[in-house]
Formats: sequence, C-alpha cells, structure tokens
Amino acid sequence: MATITLGEIAAHLGGRLFGDASLSITGTAEIDKAREGEITFLANPRYRSFLKTTRASAVIVDEKAGEVPEIPHIRVKDAYVAFMKTVLLFHPPRELLEPGIHPTAVVDHSARLGEDVRIGAHVFVGKNVRIGKGTRIFPNCVILDHVSIGEGCILYPGVTVREECGIGNRVILHNGVVVGSDGFGFAAHEGRHWKIPQVGRVIIEDDVEIGANATIDRATLGETVIRSGVKLDNLVHIAHNVVVGEHTVIAAQTGISGSTRIGRHVMMGGQVGTVGHITIGDHAQIGAQSGVSKSVPPGEVVFGYPARPIMKTKRIEAALNNLPELIKRVRQLEQGMQELQKKIGSR
Amino acid sequence: MATITLGEIAAHLGGRLFGDASLSITGTAEIDKAREGEITFLANPRYRSFLKTTRASAVIVDEKAGEVPEIPHIRVKDAYVAFMKTVLLFHPPRELLEPGIHPTAVVDHSARLGEDVRIGAHVFVGKNVRIGKGTRIFPNCVILDHVSIGEGCILYPGVTVREECGIGNRVILHNGVVVGSDGFGFAAHEGRHWKIPQVGRVIIEDDVEIGANATIDRATLGETVIRSGVKLDNLVHIAHNVVVGEHTVIAAQTGISGSTRIGRHVMMGGQVGTVGHITIGDHAQIGAQSGVSKSVPPGEVVFGYPARPIMKTKRIEAALNNLPELIKRVRQLEQGMQELQKKIGSR
Amino acid sequence: MATITLGEIAAHLGGRLFGDASLSITGTAEIDKAREGEITFLANPRYRSFLKTTRASAVIVDEKAGEVPEIPHIRVKDAYVAFMKTVLLFHPPRELLEPGIHPTAVVDHSARLGEDVRIGAHVFVGKNVRIGKGTRIFPNCVILDHVSIGEGCILYPGVTVREECGIGNRVILHNGVVVGSDGFGFAAHEGRHWKIPQVGRVIIEDDVEIGANATIDRATLGETVIRSGVKLDNLVHIAHNVVVGEHTVIAAQTGISGSTRIGRHVMMGGQVGTVGHITIGDHAQIGAQSGVSKSVPPGEVVFGYPARPIMKTKRIEAALNNLPELIKRVRQLEQGMQELQKKIGSR
Repeated sequence: MATITLGEIAAHLGGRLFGDASLSITGTAEIDKAREGEITFLANPRYRSFLKTTRASAVIVDEKAGEVPEIPHIRVKDAYVAFMKTVLLFHPPRELLEPGIHPTAVVDHSARLGEDVRIGAHVFVGKNVRIGKGTRIFPNCVILDHVSIGEGCILYPGVTVREECGIGNRVILHNGVVVGSDGFGFAAHEGRHWKIPQVGRVIIEDDVEIGANATIDRATLGETVIRSGVKLDNLVHIAHNVVVGEHTVIAAQTGISGSTRIGRHVMMGGQVGTVGHITIGDHAQIGAQSGVSKSVPPGEVVFGYPARPIMKTKRIEAALNNLPELIKRVRQLEQGMQELQKKIGSR
Repeated sequence: MATITLGEIAAHLGGRLFGDASLSITGTAEIDKAREGEITFLANPRYRSFLKTTRASAVIVDEKAGEVPEIPHIRVKDAYVAFMKTVLLFHPPRELLEPGIHPTAVVDHSARLGEDVRIGAHVFVGKNVRIGKGTRIFPNCVILDHVSIGEGCILYPGVTVREECGIGNRVILHNGVVVGSDGFGFAAHEGRHWKIPQVGRVIIEDDVEIGANATIDRATLGETVIRSGVKLDNLVHIAHNVVVGEHTVIAAQTGISGSTRIGRHVMMGGQVGTVGHITIGDHAQIGAQSGVSKSVPPGEVVFGYPARPIMKTKRIEAALNNLPELIKRVRQLEQGMQELQKKIGSR
Repeated sequence: MATITLGEIAAHLGGRLFGDASLSITGTAEIDKAREGEITFLANPRYRSFLKTTRASAVIVDEKAGEVPEIPHIRVKDAYVAFMKTVLLFHPPRELLEPGIHPTAVVDHSARLGEDVRIGAHVFVGKNVRIGKGTRIFPNCVILDHVSIGEGCILYPGVTVREECGIGNRVILHNGVVVGSDGFGFAAHEGRHWKIPQVGRVIIEDDVEIGANATIDRATLGETVIRSGVKLDNLVHIAHNVVVGEHTVIAAQTGISGSTRIGRHVMMGGQVGTVGHITIGDHAQIGAQSGVSKSVPPGEVVFGYPARPIMKTKRIEAALNNLPELIKRVRQLEQGMQELQKKIGSR
C-alpha cells in the first residue's frame, strides 16, 4: 500500500496543516470507520462528536470549523471536496485498457478516431463513426453507423449505441447501457399494433453519466436529449422524445414516459414514474416511487402516488394512520346521534 | 436531404391530391413543429385549429375531414397510417449489416440459416440453431444451442437467447434483451434455498417486439409464452411460466410474476407489478404503477396500489385529498355532540 | 425422449415403491397437467383431490401421506425435493460449452484458471484474474483486471464484471448481470455535480444467484457485499456499500439504496424500494412494491407505500375502500347535528 505524508496531502490540497508534516498516512476512510494510519474528514457538524472517538491519524476539516482537539488536521475551504481529492491521491484512476485498438476489435475503415483513443477486445465500430481524443471503449461495446462520440468519454463493457446518435465530451456510460433503441410507438389499426417508425436519434451532451443497464430510446422524429451534466442511475428508462435538462439527477429504476420535458437541476428519487407529454419545472424535486401524472411547477417538491405537494402527502399519510380509528369515531357519533334523536323525539 | 414531390407522395399513398403536384417536399414533422417544405398530418380533430397556423407546406388529412383551407393537402382513408408511410418514404429502413456472416462471428456448422440471413461481428450461434430467411443478427448477440428463430427478425446488438427457446417471424428484440434466463424458483429446506431446475423454455410468436434490456425467463417445466403481436417496452420483466396473450401491450419497467396469465389485447401501463398465478382478462386495462394482487376480469379497467376498479381508485384519491379536513370535521362533530349531550342531560 | 422405469426412479430417490417397477416413465409434470406416461408429485395436501383425476402414470408422495388409491406411487421423505431430483433425472444439466478456452476468447496470460474451466467465444479476461475449477464463462462475458471467481460458477452470456471484484464458489450470474459498476455518488458544488470516486469493490459470496440484467454497484470506499446463499431476481438494483445478509431472497426489479444493510433470511417482494442508510432486520419480510423509508426490526412483516406493519396497511386499505362512503356519513351527521341544534335551540 502506498503511504503519503500528511505534509504532502496538505500541499496537494492547498490547506493549512496543524500537526506533524512527516506523519505517514496509509489510506482514507469515513470518520466512524477509519483505522490508525488513515485520514478522514469532517464536513457535517452532526458528526463532530466523532472527532473525539475516531481512530484516524488525521482529519480534514473546513476552514471555519471550530477548535479541533489534539488530532492532527488540515484546514481547507471545502472539507468534502478536499477529501475526495485525497481519495484520488490514494486511488489514482487506473488505466484498464491497452493503448490503441485491440486486434479482435472490428473498426470500420471509415471511422475517424482522435489521439489516444483506446478500444478493447471484441468491440464493433460501424461506418462513419467519430470518436474524440482520449475516449475509452471497453470490451464488447457496439457502436453502429454514423455515431459521434466526443473526447474523454468512457464506455464500459457491453454498452451498445445505435446508429446516428451523438454523445458529447467526458460522458461516462456504465456497463450495459443502451443508447438509441427504438421508441415504443404503435398505431392500433384493425385489432393490431403497427410499428410507428422511430427515425429520430439520441443526443447526449457533455459531462453526462448514465448507470448500468439504463436505456435511452431514440426519438420518433427529432431527438431525445440528455443535456449537459445530467446524472442517471442504473436501470433508468428514458422514452422517446424526452428532454432532460442540465444538471438534473435521476435515481435508479425511474422511468420517464414519451415526450416529457424535465427541467434543469431537477432531483428525482428512485423508481419514480411519469406520464408522457408533461413538464417538470427547473429545480423541482420528486420523491422516490412517486407517480407523476401531471406537470410539476418549477421549484415544487412533490411526493407520493399520485404525486402531490410533499406537505399534502405527509398530511394525508398521517391522517391515514388514524383512518381505522376515525371510522370507529364516526360510528360512535352515529350512535350518539341516534340516541339524542330518540331522546328529543320522545319528549 | 432527399426531396420528393407532393404528387409522388399522393401517388405512393393512393390519395387524392388537392394542390400543386410539383411542390417539393423535404421531410415530415408534426403539425405544430413542421417548417416550410415539410409535410404533416391531421388525424385528431382536436388539432384542427393548427391547420391555420402550421408552417408545413402540405398536410395529409382523412377523406372525411371537413374543408381544408388554402394549404395543399392529400385526402386518404387513414391520415395517421398514411403519414407513417410518408415518414418511411423519407427515412427508408437502412441496411446496417453487411450481407452474409461477419468473419469474426462464430456460427456452429450445424446451424441452418435461411436465405439472406445477415450476422454481425462477434456473434455466437450454437449447435442446431435455425434462423429463417432475411433475419438480421447484430454484433455481439449470443444464440445458444437448439434455438429456432423465424424469418424477417431483427436482433439488435447484445441480445442473448438461451438454449432451446423458439422465436417466430418478424420479431424485433432490442439491444440487451434476454430470452430464456432461468426462472426464479427455490425450495426452502433447512435454512437454505435450493435451486429448482428450470428446464422449460420460452416461446415468442410472430410480430412480437421487445424493448431494450427486457428479460423473459424460461419456464420451470413447459413454456413461458409471448403470443403474436405482443409489444413489450424496455426493462419489462416476464417471470417463468407466464403467458402473455395476443396483441397485448405492456409499458416500460412492468413486472409480471410467475405463472400469471395475461389475456389478449390487454393494455398495461409502466411500472405495474402483478402477483403470480393470477389471470388478467382479455381487453383489461391496468393503469401505470398499479399493484395487481388478484385476477382482473375481462374488459375491466383497474388502477392503483392496490389495483381497484379505476372509478373506485379515483373516488378514493379525491377523498384522500379531503381526509385531513375530514378529521377536523369529525372533531367538530364530537364537540357539538358533547355540548348537545350536556344541554339535554342538564334539562 | 428418454424413458426411465419407475423402479429406477424409486432407487434413485431411495424411496419405497408401491406398484410395477418395470413401468416406463417418459417425463415429469405437475399433477393437473401430467399426461399418460409421466410422473408427478403431491406435496401440498390442498392438491390431494387431484390424485383421483390426474392422468399421470405414477406419483411421488410424502412418507406420511395418507392412503393413495390405485395409482403407482413412491413414498419419500420430502416429495417436493424428490420430484426436483426426478426432473433432473429427465433433464440432466446439459454441457453447453466446449472444453477449454474458445479460440476467439481473449484471456490475459497472467490469468490463473483452475481445472476444467470453460470459456466461450468472444469472452475477455483481463490481467491477474483468477477463475476456480469447473467454472463456466459463456460467450461475450467481460471480466476486467484483478477479478477473482471461485469454483463451479456459471456466468451466462453477456455478464460483465468490473475490476477487482470478488466472486465466491457456485455463484450463478444470469445473462447481462453487471457486477462492480460505479456507485451513484456526486457532490454538488457551484451548480454542478462532481463525481465522487468509487474506489471500492463488490464481494459476492458462495451459492449466490443473480437474475438477468441485475446491477450491483461497487462501493465508494470498502465493499458492497452479497453474502452466502442470497438469491436476487432479474433487474434488481443494489447500490454502493449495501450489504445483503445470508440467504436473503429479493424478487424482481427491487432497488436497494446506498449503504443500506439487509439482514439474513429476509424476504423482499418485487419492485420494492428502500431509502439508503437503513437496516432491515434478520427474517424481516417486505411486501411487493413497498416503499421502505425507515429501518425494519428483525422478524417484522411490512407492506405498503410507505411501508407499515402489514396488519396496519391491511386495515388502512380496508378503511380506504369505505372512505368515500365515510365522507357521506360525516355529511349526514353534520346535517343531523344542525337539525338537532335548531330543535334544541328553538325550544
């Protein structure tokens, strides 16, 4: 295992060191799990009490964190970001692919590859494909004709991209991601479903990351678009003609129906479903497993099945807990009422 | 971009042309998105007002559509179907695979391939496999022993079919579809789960389309069956021994548990779940995200978690909106009752 | 089709035979579906009446089953387990892979393979991979560097395993399973989401089975762990740093959020979702489609969205059925109250 001195870490982070610069650090861990020799961090004041009990040999804290007792520490602007940099110091990204094109890969002669593109075993690259500088294509990926992939991308094993799709720079597609499969469109006619040709494509902009086995359908006409900075988790389904706005984050197993437009900086929990042809406004938040059946205004926080404003759903949930008892209370009221009516009638 | 004259389109559709036959058309678009030079369609009378504002250069309408003002148009029996034909005129299906078997594909010598079967790079085809005329197998598909695939099928990249499964004619399997994985069956015995052998298979009939990364498990004994004309969307899960009836449509991420029988012409929304060993009757409709815990009669429309007849669910949903207020009303009634009881008691 | 005599079956099972040992049996089937020549079983007394109507030629029953009329039968300790053994007698596991390494597979020279490892076409095996005795790797699987796989495992077509993951003995990974994809972790900073390095790995212990297209993310730091005997169904999602305890069973399309700990012998239905950082106690049971938002004590049975103790959810569901009517009853009470108040006030 590599060891790095505390002084080297402080220098790398541009932070102020309080403690012995020559101290050997062997790795990184969370504050409650760290062992002797490891460095940890404190960003959330809720964990402050762990400062006294942690077995870590050093800790990274925010500049404006209060007094830190005894333990060697480094003060930085953002302790969390600094810790991530430290993690990468101990785990520098490994190069898993050999330089060049693996001899078993099939790359059409018309493909244009940038500098230091690496292509693994059994990859297929079709006609007129463009792949930008430094992009990595892992074994068993398939890229069909006329696809364009930008610089610095990673396509992990088993990714498949259908014809004519466009992928930006620094995009990460995890194992088994599907880009550009046909949208689900049929016209009912005389008791059968006739396939509506899906002749559009998928555009994925820069800095997008898409989780394992997620599927992004091509548009019927035009484009399905995943805008810059979007992060989609595993097994997410994006239907045809959907647009997902910049820096939106969608958790695992969520499904977005056709032609729905999702704004910028939206946060969606896992297993959410939306109907088609609606709009989710910028900065909206959708709780896990919600069923979104109509448009959500910008900034709104909705939750539930069906999705309602979160305070409404919480009130309903609390009321539901009391519902069986409420029914008893109504029955008692009815009896009380009957008795009163008898009394009054009998006078 | 190809241009086609309005007269050529009218002739192709067998429709009546009202307007200049020599007009150059450059593409197709929806009525509210069309630009100059494009042709659009009007099938749904709700969109009729767009006829006045569309920038399209021509429109396809139903024979019995009312008067169409000014814009060149073609009258046909079914405007929607005609428009789809026009889309295909501008986007003829592209041949993405070279003729024959790619030299990197591994096809067992015992396989029997029909005329003009095309097999892409790095495909594996096992023993005694039969593939019908004109079928396309894209790169990195795997077909294990004794599988039979009909004519005119498309298996997109990364599809895997386990041994002994049978696939009909004109079936489309999108990227990453799994056919014939083991059913999920275990017998609990002395604190462990023992695998129940899954020795059945999967039968997929004609004209079925299955979405990206969907999974169809083989039967324990006998067959899991997807009948003619069924359309399954992305990430759908079909468990062992399920039967899906003719022309049924199931949206994305829905899961059908073991041995459930789904009738003909059923419509299921996305993210629906059903328990096992139930029957969904012909022409039933199941709303998105429903949890179906018992059989559904033919023609019934159910929705919700748990799934109930849709009107019942709608009434409950409306009532839930008023539930917090209802609790207040009951509290007021209880106070009113107490006061009355005091008054009457005190007389 | 193979035929086996009833005497041979009885001997194989170590059971007591009542009937003609020379009777030819042609296959196995369930009691209500069996045809002449087939053998069936009776384990559940609920199906006892089928004994009179079954067309099977023989039946396997429990030792302590009551009298069996007329039909040839075999008495054994556990009729279900014995039937499964009989199924395997008629369907012995087929060897679908040729011995050795397929010439199109790419296996790094540093890989250490045990005896009788079989590797199919177009497989990629990276550096320093270890694969134990008798393990089968089907076509188009990808195993990246430093992965360790135990003895007697099966990796079906299209499985991909990222670097450094560890897989135990007798593990079955169905088509398209992803092991070791990056966890979904980002730090928000100045309006963008910065990737948190996911430098941990996945550990899968012995006798685990994972369904088609399921995804298991690697830990941020440390390990995501699937313990011995766990069974995961198709399209299940396991997030980073999750631990799934021994012999737990999780049905299709369920998603477990990051750092959640699931105990031993837990049973989870399909399409369940859990939030992160909670604990599901040993032997807990979670109903299908539940939304689990807080820890579940050992042995508890929960269900619903949100998940509540099952009896509570059932009572609420029953109450919901009566909710629209309850609202009417409250309205009547309010009217009754007004009338009473008038009467009493007017005296």
